[in-house]
Amino acid sequence: MRQFAVVTAIAAALALSAAAVAGAAPKVAPPAMTQAELEKRFDALIDTKDMDGWMKDMASQPNHVGSPHDKANAEYMLAKFKAWGWDAHIETFDVLYPTPISETLEIVGPTPFKATLQEPPIVGDTTEHAMAGALPAWVAFGADGDVTSDLVYVNFGMPDDYKALERLGIDVKGKIVIARYGAGWRGLKPKLAQDHGAIGCIIYSDPAQDGYVQDDAYPNGPARPPHSFQRGSVADMPIYPGDPLTPGYGSTKDAKRIPIAEAKTILKIPVLPISYADAQVFLSQLKGPVAPPSFRGGLPITYHVGPGPAKVHLATKAEWTNKTIYDVVAVMKGSQYPDQWIVRGNHHDGWVYGASDPLSGNVAMMSEMKAIGTLVKQGWRPKRTLVYASWDAEEPMLLGSTEYAETHAVELKAHALIYINTDNNGRGFLGVEGNHDFQRMVNGVANDVIDPEANVSIGQRLRANLMVDAAAPGANGQAQAMGKLAASDRDLPLGPLGSGSDYSAFLQHLGVPAINFGFGGEDSGGGVYHSAYDTYEHYSRFVDPGFVYGGVMAKTAGRMVLRVSESELPTQRFGDFADTVSTYLDEVKGLANSRRDAAEAQERLLKTGAYRLADDPHRPEAAPAFEGRVPFINFAPLDNSVDRLKRSAKAYDAALAAKGGGLSADKVAKLNTMTRDIDQLLLDDVGLPFRPWYRNMVYAPGRFTGYGAKTLPGVREAIEERRYDDAARYVGITAKVLDAYSDRLDQATALINGN
Amino acid sequence: MRQFAVVTAIAAALALSAAAVAGAAPKVAPPAMTQAELEKRFDALIDTKDMDGWMKDMASQPNHVGSPHDKANAEYMLAKFKAWGWDAHIETFDVLYPTPISETLEIVGPTPFKATLQEPPIVGDTTEHAMAGALPAWVAFGADGDVTSDLVYVNFGMPDDYKALERLGIDVKGKIVIARYGAGWRGLKPKLAQDHGAIGCIIYSDPAQDGYVQDDAYPNGPARPPHSFQRGSVADMPIYPGDPLTPGYGSTKDAKRIPIAEAKTILKIPVLPISYADAQVFLSQLKGPVAPPSFRGGLPITYHVGPGPAKVHLATKAEWTNKTIYDVVAVMKGSQYPDQWIVRGNHHDGWVYGASDPLSGNVAMMSEMKAIGTLVKQGWRPKRTLVYASWDAEEPMLLGSTEYAETHAVELKAHALIYINTDNNGRGFLGVEGNHDFQRMVNGVANDVIDPEANVSIGQRLRANLMVDAAAPGANGQAQAMGKLAASDRDLPLGPLGSGSDYSAFLQHLGVPAINFGFGGEDSGGGVYHSAYDTYEHYSRFVDPGFVYGGVMAKTAGRMVLRVSESELPTQRFGDFADTVSTYLDEVKGLANSRRDAAEAQERLLKTGAYRLADDPHRPEAAPAFEGRVPFINFAPLDNSVDRLKRSAKAYDAALAAKGGGLSADKVAKLNTMTRDIDQLLLDDVGLPFRPWYRNMVYAPGRFTGYGAKTLPGVREAIEERRYDDAARYVGITAKVLDAYSDRLDQATALINGN
Repeated sequence: MRQFAVVTAIAAALALSAAAVAGAAPKVAPPAMTQAELEKRFDALIDTKDMDGWMKDMASQPNHVGSPHDKANAEYMLAKFKAWGWDAHIETFDVLYPTPISETLEIVGPTPFKATLQEPPIVGDTTEHAMAGALPAWVAFGADGDVTSDLVYVNFGMPDDYKALERLGIDVKGKIVIARYGAGWRGLKPKLAQDHGAIGCIIYSDPAQDGYVQDDAYPNGPARPPHSFQRGSVADMPIYPGDPLTPGYGSTKDAKRIPIAEAKTILKIPVLPISYADAQVFLSQLKGPVAPPSFRGGLPITYHVGPGPAKVHLATKAEWTNKTIYDVVAVMKGSQYPDQWIVRGNHHDGWVYGASDPLSGNVAMMSEMKAIGTLVKQGWRPKRTLVYASWDAEEPMLLGSTEYAETHAVELKAHALIYINTDNNGRGFLGVEGNHDFQRMVNGVANDVIDPEANVSIGQRLRANLMVDAAAPGANGQAQAMGKLAASDRDLPLGPLGSGSDYSAFLQHLGVPAINFGFGGEDSGGGVYHSAYDTYEHYSRFVDPGFVYGGVMAKTAGRMVLRVSESELPTQRFGDFADTVSTYLDEVKGLANSRRDAAEAQERLLKTGAYRLADDPHRPEAAPAFEGRVPFINFAPLDNSVDRLKRSAKAYDAALAAKGGGLSADKVAKLNTMTRDIDQLLLDDVGLPFRPWYRNMVYAPGRFTGYGAKTLPGVREAIEERRYDDAARYVGITAKVLDAYSDRLDQATALINGN
Repeated sequence: MRQFAVVTAIAAALALSAAAVAGAAPKVAPPAMTQAELEKRFDALIDTKDMDGWMKDMASQPNHVGSPHDKANAEYMLAKFKAWGWDAHIETFDVLYPTPISETLEIVGPTPFKATLQEPPIVGDTTEHAMAGALPAWVAFGADGDVTSDLVYVNFGMPDDYKALERLGIDVKGKIVIARYGAGWRGLKPKLAQDHGAIGCIIYSDPAQDGYVQDDAYPNGPARPPHSFQRGSVADMPIYPGDPLTPGYGSTKDAKRIPIAEAKTILKIPVLPISYADAQVFLSQLKGPVAPPSFRGGLPITYHVGPGPAKVHLATKAEWTNKTIYDVVAVMKGSQYPDQWIVRGNHHDGWVYGASDPLSGNVAMMSEMKAIGTLVKQGWRPKRTLVYASWDAEEPMLLGSTEYAETHAVELKAHALIYINTDNNGRGFLGVEGNHDFQRMVNGVANDVIDPEANVSIGQRLRANLMVDAAAPGANGQAQAMGKLAASDRDLPLGPLGSGSDYSAFLQHLGVPAINFGFGGEDSGGGVYHSAYDTYEHYSRFVDPGFVYGGVMAKTAGRMVLRVSESELPTQRFGDFADTVSTYLDEVKGLANSRRDAAEAQERLLKTGAYRLADDPHRPEAAPAFEGRVPFINFAPLDNSVDRLKRSAKAYDAALAAKGGGLSADKVAKLNTMTRDIDQLLLDDVGLPFRPWYRNMVYAPGRFTGYGAKTLPGVREAIEERRYDDAARYVGITAKVLDAYSDRLDQATALINGN
């Protein structure tokens, strides 16, 4: 492992650039080759047997942050990357990472019970022989604590669940809550619990979500076994990801840390995950109102909300010290635009063995690297610089990628054209999210990669699936619209990016456009998510036997990389972005209107006493609290900016289509420069309310969804959270960034059209 | 008990009329009293303590058809009715009723298991001391049989479930199926199973429908306990209800019977119901494909569809002899229109103790009878004749009411103005179905009966509930439309009548307009439905403590009876009927269009191979079979008839509103005669396809819903079942009956407007 001394972000940037230049020097002159020929040669170099072998090695021992095998895996990759001809190094950061010292979870009464906080080995599975060093039941960045109180069941622990509990007269103040996984990001559950006054939080995996309700439990099938639990991070990611002690800058060895007590992303209450076998014992000791229908999971009990009579003792203690993490970064320098970087990443740390999450994506990425290395050895050379990264410490809070992006912010902003991310991979249909100016490029790739299950392109297969879903009885309006789109010759839309993987810092903090994708819908990998049973055996039996979709992922990501890197002209089509932003604006306006209507309807119901009249005196429920009227908001600035954006984008697209082929080399270079960082214009330094780290005014993870995206977040969340002054303010800020975007487009159009 | 020798239907009719005249002679001249005063006096005579006492007596022993207590209950009522001043008698019929001799249900392998076919006693419940003579696990009118085969799980056993199984490659031919209760009428499950070639059928109560998923199990709560099962009838009711051996005529002692082998409503395969405790053992021994999401219930297992490896042995044997049933009929003769009858009914036979079903409704009806009897003793006298009936043998197949209606068809058609039905009652909100010309009358009643839980009218409370439901997050379009309607001053709609209680023969065979209602939404009576635990203790603890809604039911039904009976002018408003039929026509046309669109979409998908492309090779599913294109249907005859009906109805309503008050006594009498039987004009003697017993061209139970209504059934079901010639034919037949209806309305309008 190469030790990498980082002094400042800028110095590091220079160092990286230098390394990139040195490492990727071509050995022979590149042969003339069309893009199609290049991709064909690339495809031929993708070998799923490689992936199988790499996963077997890398998933053989626990590889969570701080484990010996995590570091060993970094070194394993480093050696390979170098051998494949990449200029590779390991970049380390020292991040706060709490390691569990002790956990206690028990029912102290009426019927005492001690929770099992270990996952039992399964015969024939990696767990049979490699459990030494595996993390117990554990979530990162809950607080140390030792609490005892009555238990309350809060369903998914999401805002609507607390509203339902309030109507039932249930308060969690001073109580320990038990929430089930699902419906929102893990970390929101304890955060909302603590916001409501709870003193501890248990999270369990209900069989309705990923257990026997879905499929046979492992090892008979892919679903979660009774004693399996989901580890994970509960840091308050929607404030900022990365090291809680270095918000907005890299946690390099000598970086200044804020005190732990000041770190806003660390929770204040203890949290533990448990299995459904254990949860059943806890939940069946609850009385109080029968849980509303939406609260009921798949356990063979009548769900009650409590509080109590089950009284629970929950205690956790961790070692709150810095740990070293190992990002493996490899560079292949570009021949024509060495200063334009295509960044491609996947993390390598898991919660236990991490076969599916993250190694399935990581081995696909390795396969791309081996293929590109071979192409380079054969004399080919990318036009732009390729930067491949296998991140460490994604699981605890996107640490490896965030600290890297924060450390190298200046150079990334100056050079990165796009960040292409994968994470765990499954089997079935392409799911892809990203900046919408790359929608055309992604569709082009999807139309060319062949799906070996169906022998059509992955795009065609996805369209078939959307059409079948739309034809299913009971398909909703959105499914039907997608089916219609899929049957047309229009491009399929990209989803917007929220968070939950390593693109976050690139997209939302630096403004570098990002794409994240994977395959799914046929695998059943969710049943072992973040458990010890996410093993090579489980993966190769149930998720992607033969690494068929590992190969598809490598070919898809490789094509994205190679198309952006090799294209003479910019690959973006901005009309797609403008049209999409326009639909987001429609959504936001519709949201305000529907909220207004709902508030009016609710006010009417409250005034007429309808809630009281409809109430069952034997199971009383209070009327919902009135949340206030919704004022009319001035959307005109955004209407104008979006209107302009559409015109500017279409003018650019038309100009490029008409004249792009005939531009001088100088103009092409200038055009590439003008469009490379255009998506960075979507940032505003003021950031989003309560969380200035998030600066992208079009794409953000939701404050109360965590993973799920909120588009036009400054405006949308202000309406959702009834901050109407913020809504008006962010209409202006968002309009401003879109105007800057249009300005840049207009300049580019002028360049194309000019003499 | 009075022995009643019935010779022919007409003779019986004469006998009944004579008895009615004799029995209800007024003792004193009726005092002048407004309708409001009458209803106030009536209300004051409703005593919920009476109901409590009667239920305690009548539910103290098993009271199914053929049990000593069933007959005793008839005699108990007869004595009371007579004491209350009614001209009452017991009318008997001799009906085919199979009594169980032996049942066997076991898994013969791989892991043998014998099903428990008895419900265990519960301490403190009637089951603790009165189980002698209770029926075991049993459904009436399955075939005797002794079969052994592999088991297949068919979900609810409805047509869509068989389509899903077909796509999975699962055939039930020669197999025994296990279906769960719900989603369609019980009897359809074995019938569809036998239609698909199955040789036996098990039906179980999944906890998702009425067990622990819904609430705590009895005795801790109202829901179904693990070893409880649902008895019931599985006769092929959609062909005809009543005695299988006397289709269309009364099963009087000497009536000619068809041979059992020719009775189309008796199934050909053996059927048994089981508990979810037992079902779990059966289902967990199935392999084969994992059941699709819609198949998954609330048991803590992964549902598989099979077939096998569980091999099941099912044997049932019954005594197929005639049993005597006991309808208790009581008459209070009318003073002004003695030949116009208001018929009011509820059945008295249960499956075990029948506290909720049917005694909760029966005791409310008894309370009405006692109150009316007292009013008569106090000198009041109804204007029209009241006929109250407590039917026997509703449970096995609406036997008591159907045989009565068939026996007395001529006099009922000649005299009955309306049939008002109740059955089991719950707690909460009014649910009411009926002929739509009575919608105004029903709304008037609903606006005047006070709900003691909310201290507003039951109509207002229902409106409040509809508004609250509409405001709930995720409320669908229909809920929102209902909320809007509820907030307006327009009347609430009646639901259309399908089947499942004693109104069927009146409405669908004789054309007598019917109303059926009850209260629900707050009780949790479903958990013991047709089980031994439907006891007085369960009912008074969980369903309607204090018989609060028993009182409300009596006041509601009583008002309906008294308003129709006492009104000078007809109570119908025909515009409501016309408008409703118009929406049904819109629905039927929409159905044809959406079926056509779906068929086109499916054909496209099949042609493009989308199903194949979207298929998971590891869990293959065949493309659905193409069911053929949907031709355009000539709806013009119905369009014209409905258009005319709307004009005719509105002209009548307007004429009556303008001039009704000033009509001569002679005209009023004529008008009452013209409108009394107008709804009988909705019949056509040709009946519905495959089931000529059902003659009403506007209202019918669905062939494949059983209980659920199909409106304009000749047309609607023909489209649903792709019988397009029938669709065209029934457009004509339905138009014809509506024209006859319009003719009658026009005559009545001419009468009102004439000089």
